[in-house]
Parts: sequence; C-alpha cells; structure tokens
Amino acid sequence: MSSGKFQLKVPKGTKDWADKDMVLRTAIFDTIVSVFKRHGGVTLDTPVFELKEILAGKYGEDSKLIYDLKDQGGELCSLRYDLTVPFARYLAMNPTVQSMKRFHIAKVYRRDQPAMTKGRMREFYQCDFDIAGTFESMIPDAEILAIGVETLSDLGIKDFKAKLNHRGILDGIFQTCGVPEADVRKISSAVDKLDKLPWADVKKEMTIEKGLPEEVADKIGEYVKLKGGPELLEQLKADQSLMSNTSAKAGVDDLTRLFEYTDAYQITSYISFDLSLARGLDYYTGLIYEFVVASSAPPPSAGSAAEKKHAKKSKDKYIDDDDNSENVGVGSIAAGGRYDKLVGMFSNSKKGDIPCVGVSFGVERLFSLIKASINEDQLRANDTEVFVMAMGGGEGWTGFLKERMAVSKMLWEAGIKAEFQYKTKVKFRQQFEAAEKAGIPIALILGQEEYPNGYVKIKMLGTHAAGDGETVKVEDMIPTLKEKIATVNSTSALIESIRQL
Amino acid sequence: MSSGKFQLKVPKGTKDWADKDMVLRTAIFDTIVSVFKRHGGVTLDTPVFELKEILAGKYGEDSKLIYDLKDQGGELCSLRYDLTVPFARYLAMNPTVQSMKRFHIAKVYRRDQPAMTKGRMREFYQCDFDIAGTFESMIPDAEILAIGVETLSDLGIKDFKAKLNHRGILDGIFQTCGVPEADVRKISSAVDKLDKLPWADVKKEMTIEKGLPEEVADKIGEYVKLKGGPELLEQLKADQSLMSNTSAKAGVDDLTRLFEYTDAYQITSYISFDLSLARGLDYYTGLIYEFVVASSAPPPSAGSAAEKKHAKKSKDKYIDDDDNSENVGVGSIAAGGRYDKLVGMFSNSKKGDIPCVGVSFGVERLFSLIKASINEDQLRANDTEVFVMAMGGGEGWTGFLKERMAVSKMLWEAGIKAEFQYKTKVKFRQQFEAAEKAGIPIALILGQEEYPNGYVKIKMLGTHAAGDGETVKVEDMIPTLKEKIATVNSTSALIESIRQL
Repeated sequence: MSSGKFQLKVPKGTKDWADKDMVLRTAIFDTIVSVFKRHGGVTLDTPVFELKEILAGKYGEDSKLIYDLKDQGGELCSLRYDLTVPFARYLAMNPTVQSMKRFHIAKVYRRDQPAMTKGRMREFYQCDFDIAGTFESMIPDAEILAIGVETLSDLGIKDFKAKLNHRGILDGIFQTCGVPEADVRKISSAVDKLDKLPWADVKKEMTIEKGLPEEVADKIGEYVKLKGGPELLEQLKADQSLMSNTSAKAGVDDLTRLFEYTDAYQITSYISFDLSLARGLDYYTGLIYEFVVASSAPPPSAGSAAEKKHAKKSKDKYIDDDDNSENVGVGSIAAGGRYDKLVGMFSNSKKGDIPCVGVSFGVERLFSLIKASINEDQLRANDTEVFVMAMGGGEGWTGFLKERMAVSKMLWEAGIKAEFQYKTKVKFRQQFEAAEKAGIPIALILGQEEYPNGYVKIKMLGTHAAGDGETVKVEDMIPTLKEKIATVNSTSALIESIRQL
Repeated sequence: MSSGKFQLKVPKGTKDWADKDMVLRTAIFDTIVSVFKRHGGVTLDTPVFELKEILAGKYGEDSKLIYDLKDQGGELCSLRYDLTVPFARYLAMNPTVQSMKRFHIAKVYRRDQPAMTKGRMREFYQCDFDIAGTFESMIPDAEILAIGVETLSDLGIKDFKAKLNHRGILDGIFQTCGVPEADVRKISSAVDKLDKLPWADVKKEMTIEKGLPEEVADKIGEYVKLKGGPELLEQLKADQSLMSNTSAKAGVDDLTRLFEYTDAYQITSYISFDLSLARGLDYYTGLIYEFVVASSAPPPSAGSAAEKKHAKKSKDKYIDDDDNSENVGVGSIAAGGRYDKLVGMFSNSKKGDIPCVGVSFGVERLFSLIKASINEDQLRANDTEVFVMAMGGGEGWTGFLKERMAVSKMLWEAGIKAEFQYKTKVKFRQQFEAAEKAGIPIALILGQEEYPNGYVKIKMLGTHAAGDGETVKVEDMIPTLKEKIATVNSTSALIESIRQL
C-alpha cells in the first residue's frame, strides 16, 4: 500500500465534474441529445484510444498534441484527438454502412498548454453530429447548420452567428491570386488568424515568414476582407477572373444552393459569409463554418505574444497551439465542415470514399456561457423528491428505522426518489434540516402514533411549504405523493428554463 | 497525409458500440441511472487518466494491468483501472464533502488478456454506486444491497442471488485456524477461487504453493464450505473458538444487524451468506458481496489450464489475471463491498478517513444476458417518429424539397423527431420504403395538389398501419402528429419491456 508523499490532484488540464456543475452539464447534454435525436441521429461509441497509425497524418502540425499510450507490449495506441477520425475509421471498417446520421458525445484528448480561463483543457468533451452518405449537394449541409442554430437556441445562447466559408472558394482565390499549389495550406492557415490579428500582421506572416510575393498577398487581402450575406455571392459571381476558376465557381454554386435551403429553414439571418474563415484542419473539402458568440470576446491579453512566449518557454514542453488549433476563434462555440475524403483515407479503393459533413460543439465554452447566465441557487445537486422522516419521542421510542426503510422501499418500487436519515435515534428537527438543506421538496412523516394506525403525513418543504401538511392513509400515500411531485421542479424544468434564458 | 498499409481495426480488447446494441445499452444505462437517482445518487465525472502515483499500491498484484500514458514530458499518468480509487481521490481532495451518494457510469481500462466470449475487455464500462460517510453500521450497506436487487430486477434479470461475506469473519477464521498474519491476503485469494476450483486444488495452492501447514488448511476448509442464510449466523455464534476472536465477533454482529435491515427491505431471500467468498481487492474492510446469475455458468473450458498456458505464452506479453481479478466468479454481474480506509490512504491525517460502501455493475455481462433474452426485431436504431414525404408527378413537379424542409423545421421546433429524403426528385415509393425500412411509424405526406391548399396527409406505417391515413389542415398537423406519436413505441417502452422480461 502506498503512503505519504504524493500530490493529491488531478492531472494538469483535467478536472472533476461534480455537484451543481454536473447537474448543469447533464442538462446541457440532454438538450443537445434531444436536438440530435429530433434529426434522426443515432449514437456511436468508439474506444477512447485508437491504433496510433489510425490517427497518423490526420491533424497536420497538431499531431504533436496527440497523447500516446506507453509501449507496454503489443499494439501502439493513442488517445483520440477528436471524434471525427474515429467516426471515419468506423465507416471505413463497416462498408455495409453507406450512410449514417451519427452523434457522439465524449471526451477527447490534446496534450496542449492548458488555459482554464479560456476553457482550453487537455481532456474535454465534444458533442458531434455528422451526416455521412452520398446525397444531393448542400441538403445535409443545410440541415447541419439548422442543427447548430436549433441547439444553440435551445441552450438559450443569444447573439450567436454562423461564420461560413467554402474551401473551394478559398482555394480558388489563392489560385487566382497566384499562390503556388504547395503553399495553399500554409497561406490558408495564415488567413485563418484574421479573427485575432490585424491584416498587417497576417500579411507579414504571408510575405516575410512564408515567402509570398507582396502583390499576391495584397490581392488575397482584397478578398478575405469581404463578409456579408447572400448578396456577397452576387459580387463574387460578377468577378470574372475568380469565376473562371473551376474550384471557386463550384464553391459559389454550392453556396447559392445552400442559401436557398437555409431560407427554407429560416436560418439565413444567422449566417455570415466570411471569406477570412479558413479553419485549421486539413481534412475539410467544402463548406466550413464556425458558430461564434459576441459575448465571449477574447480578453485583451488572449493570444498575446508575451503569453505565447511564456508557453513556449514553460518547463514541460507542451505546445501552445493557439495558432494551429482548428478551434480558432476565441468566441467559437461550435465548428465543423464538409470532409469528403477522410473515410477514403482508411480505404484502399476509391469506392471507399463516403462524403461527410458535421458539426462539433465545445461543451466547456457553452457551459461557461450558460453558467454565467443562470441563478445557481435554482439548481439542486440531486433529484430526491421525498425525505422519509420519523416523528416521536419518550420512552420506548425506537426511531422507526426499519419502518422508514420499509416505506422507502415502497416509494422506490413506485419509482419515487426517496431518502431517509441513516440513523436509528433520529431527531425530528435534524431530519427536517437535512431535507431542507438538500432542497428536497416533500417530507413524508411517520408519526409514532399515526403510522402504526395506518396513517402518514405529507408536508411540502422549502419554497413549496404550505401549511401543516396533510395526513393520508398509507394506501393513499403513493398516489398523493405522485400528485405533489408533479407540482415541483425537476431536471426537465431546468432544461426548459435554460431554453428560456 | 497517411496512405496505404495499416490495419483497419480497433485496438485489441476494445470495440465500437453502434446500432441496436447501442440502443439496448442506452436503455440499460437509463434503467440503472433511474434506480441510482431514486436512491438520492448524484453523479461525478473524473478524468479518464489519473496521476500514476494515485493508482499505485491500490490493486495488489493487478497493478501490472494498469495502462500508462507515454512519458511525453510533464506528469506521469495512467488510465483509471476502476471508478472506486478516483472516487476516493476525489473525496480526499475535497474535505468539505464528508458524505456523498455518488454514481458514476464510465469506462475503465485493464491491460488484461481479452476474452470476448467471457465478456472480458480491455476497455469496458462500470456502473458504480457508492455511499460515503460516517453512518450507523450496516444501514448504507443494506441499501446498497437493495440497490443491487432493484437494479437487476428492473433490468429483467432472473435467478440472481447476492453471495455475501464479511472480511472480519474471514480474517477471524484465518486467525483462529492459525494462518500467520502476513499470509492472510494470499490465503484469502486462494479461498476466493473456490467458485471455480474444487477444494482439493485450493488446498494444494494453500499448502504446496503458499506453504500453509496441512492441518491449518483443513481447518479453513471446514469453514469455507459453509453457505446458507441467516441461520448460518447462529451456527457461527455457537462456535466459541471463533467467537473469541474480536474480528470474527464484530463481523457476526454486523451481519446480524444487516439481516434485520434486509428483512425490512424484503430482500433477504436474494442473499446467500457464503464463507468462501473472499474477493481479490486489498481495500475491502467489511462486508463483501457479488451478485451472480445461475444462467451464466462458465463454459466448460473457462479458466482451464490450457487456456491460461496459451495466454502466458502469447506473443504480446499481456497477463491473464483470471485468478487475480476482483471479478472472480464467472457468473458475476455486480460486486462490491465496504472499504473504510481507502480515502484515508490519500490523506495524511487519520481524520481523513471516510468510510465507504459500494457496488459496481458489469455492463458487458448484463448486456449479453439481456440481449440473449430479447427479440432484437423490436429494437430500432433511431427514434425518428415522422418521415416527411412528397407525393406528386408529371411536368413541372418540383419534388417539394424546400417544402419538406420547411415542414420538417416546423416539426423539429415542436419537438417532433422527423426526417426526409435528401433528394430533389423523390419517388413516392422510395420514400415509403426508406421509412418502413427504418421502422419510422408515421408518414407525413405533402401532396402536389393538397399541400398548396393547406392540407397534409398523415399515415401510420409498418405494424401501426391502418387504412389510408387521414387528411388534416396544416395548422392541425402538429397536434394530430403528437396524438399519433403517443400511441407508438418509444425508448421508454423498451425499458419497460426489458423490465418485464
């Protein structure tokens, strides 16, 4: 047995979820799952670690953030970095599954420099919904955007918008402006920083760091400053040099169709077509988007040079990937895009490609936003509905422990959530205080005289308290309790109140 | 980007959960959580890995089965081996929490020789309920047993019993029979094999392998063959030499009280007091138990010498710990016990001790049992309630794609689970077949003539089919659909039907 000297803590970048935070997080998950199921989603659970080679070559520079398991003999494995690659691996392994609307809520792992205040953890939850299958252009993509809007609305998030772009248009712009094919991804990643850095800095990165001629950078600069709604598409359509590029033309056609569908879903007002959105991950092939909130703007110091320098110099050699992470925007609460080639990467034949489009919600950021906007006093850590108490005294008073047990058992069997004090000689006041402290709304009282005669008393507690309670026959106890329970708050009420924030 | 040669598989001893299996597993979890919440449980979520030193010295010989993360700089971490040690670590870290009924459903990791047919995996779920806090003897213990009985009953498990013993009685027996103090744990672990091996083999292990004098082993043999109900306690109470041992006496007193409480809970008939039950883990200090089913008896080859030899010789050097695992009995579906010193191991003061008692359900085994007993045709992979279809044809027929989108959106906003075909030019028959294949119970049909005039048709499908359907106004569509939905099966009906198996 071990003893003495060790650090009593969780690993850096991880945390325990408990108490009211856990109740709130569960309510958030329930809300998200209910949207996912409304859209026909089925869930998939993959192992927390994958063969190391499955993750290899999927995350570009960010591969250095992957956690490996120690080589203890046998296969080399790594903790999953996201839920997308395991989903693609699943599809490739199960060729009979040619289409799927799957959701997956689970933890992912990144050996990143933690920044708790920014909600960046090494272990964190992702909530993903993806539509896999060969379908007509933009139909699933529009539904994914609708799911994003519905989910955030149901979570009571206000002032959010979906920044949206298309890799085809972006690639077309780079080609039209004269970026060499080999440099497209790195120029793309520079553009992606425009939500955090001024154009001058981004241009410097393109030209000085990445060797792009200044006039090429300037041409790109004219495009990537454009943002707006569907009307911006008309402007691009009028740009003959851009429209002569096949990739850009196809992207513009996609978006034209997309906006028709978002009109049908009545969500176009949430969308901001933003040519500066690029997203870090290599595997996107079409539409890309990022849901952002105005209210979670970066603190002034976020991403400052000083902070980055500190991270780079810190003793353990974890990497600050603020610049490379696919969750680029600081106000980003969900993000995703179309990835038509990822499943095929796991397959040896061209036939193995299954086009996919999806969205991933960042729970930690949503949690912080929602927590800041609710009154935590309304939350209870448990759902207990009834506290079973004994009332009596004097000589020969047993405390009715076994009676409380027997009655609790009756309640449990009737599906009622019930507790009692784990004590023989109970004091009435102590039981009352315990119930009120835990926020339990109903007391079921076994009186020394009444209970042996077949009667119990039901009394509402706390904010539900009203009068002295009512005495009912034991055989009427359960229906009466169920009526009372229906009048008090429950977790589903919490979800409802979150929605109405 | 990677390419070509790699194995498309999940790591050995892990699996994907998908489709109907996932639906069934979710229903099992929901059932278990609902029992846990009835008993006042709150949930806790701890990181999937802990500092390596937190796990050190907690699992005896089984420590070799712990998965370590690779040393990539910074802290050394290991994947959690169970949910009990992280819970104890949490309590020690949060000294304001002096009592807690916590449940935790999550994956744990053991670098064990996988045996899929026996449900032994390297990644598997545990469902734990534990009561921490200083309470009167046996009150929480009896409730944990009641939770075990309720959970298995609600899951439709039949013919189960709770084998139960007490470490105090077992230690008393070993002391009374003359086992040296230092040998108690290893003799205990030999006794624990009596559910798989005949006494002669166990005796051989005690005497030849572990050096116990033969007459001591024989004395132990007389005790550990005893099993029965509360009446066995009377037999032990009459055993003066055993009752002169403090530890055995205290254990017998505990069990006497326990049986009073299990009587109050009306669960005594499920209990088999079995002096051969020892359980592998070091940290138990009092009551120990194991829920077993008759119907999952070991296959003839289970644990055979040949199989073990094969495991030992297999190329990757994983260990077959069949003999050492705490999940000893092959028919074991849940197990647990009292551990009063584990929290204190993380604390430097005696005051840090928090007594605990808990039970852990093995989901994989429960899943196999339940799956074997249900008709899988009754399960649907998703919950979709309504398939939105278009019906029309001829020149100028658009397929009503945007209309189907707009109507689906109305349904989603009303909380109705709806899908439609991702296609412009739909064929009525194809839509019908897609809906029927997916088991979706209701078709909402937008007719080429009717819909523009404000009417839709609602038609029940599959086993719910009846007549030609009814035509309703668009404004009555949602209330009518909700009435229909209330008449068809849902996931909660699945849980109910599992309970009634």
